[in-house]
Amino acid sequence: MTIFSKIIAGDIPAYKIAENDQFFAFLDIFPLVEGHVLIVPKLEIDKFFDVPDVYLSSMLVFAKPIAKAIEKAFPCNRVGLAVVGLEVPHAHLHLVPINGIDDLNFTRGKLKLTSEQLKAAQEKILANM
Amino acid sequence: MTIFSKIIAGDIPAYKIAENDQFFAFLDIFPLVEGHVLIVPKLEIDKFFDVPDVYLSSMLVFAKPIAKAIEKAFPCNRVGLAVVGLEVPHAHLHLVPINGIDDLNFTRGKLKLTSEQLKAAQEKILANM
Repeated sequence: MTIFSKIIAGDIPAYKIAENDQFFAFLDIFPLVEGHVLIVPKLEIDKFFDVPDVYLSSMLVFAKPIAKAIEKAFPCNRVGLAVVGLEVPHAHLHLVPINGIDDLNFTRGKLKLTSEQLKAAQEKILANM
Repeated sequence: MTIFSKIIAGDIPAYKIAENDQFFAFLDIFPLVEGHVLIVPKLEIDKFFDVPDVYLSSMLVFAKPIAKAIEKAFPCNRVGLAVVGLEVPHAHLHLVPINGIDDLNFTRGKLKLTSEQLKAAQEKILANM
């Protein structure tokens, strides 16, 4: 079971943002910037483009209201999107509120937020959905 | 008219990879790595998540065979995906063959390829589709 499957199953706590039958969205606890959200399909597939079309065709539509809420909740130019996938072998999509190109640079150090800060970020996003 | 609309209209030449009624895919001529492809919806909308659902729901399915072809054509761990959108006000998605996280780092210098190298990259991808 991947760490994401454990989060989806509720075995590992997460700052949940949204969920439907296909996807689970929650805060990245090591965010590039505050408001960084992960969207994970509810099936363990390593590579993003191996995810079945029935998921791929609904993933961006599922992500849209979350991205809009992040954009309202945090000062940013827009919400960027990335799929990297070199760490956890469970396809996932990053939504990151960006002001500059470096805000989507995964080589830079991640923020270390307290649980209070993460909880506040979660509430800000949820309040805008 | 954005530079991408001019490319779609054929007013600016491009190394085309694929096209349907909704999307146009072509090589980024200033790639992060060889095989870097842009997918652009055929309507001028600045922000990615303002693109209508009818496009969002087919974009990743359109991207999939292109990503699979890029993955076969270039030595890489997998194909990464990014939406940044701070430069051209016309929503677009980057597909980049990555071996490490720095290959999807838009702050680093872009490659300057010759037209022969770009043509060869285009042909490699097309041969794998």
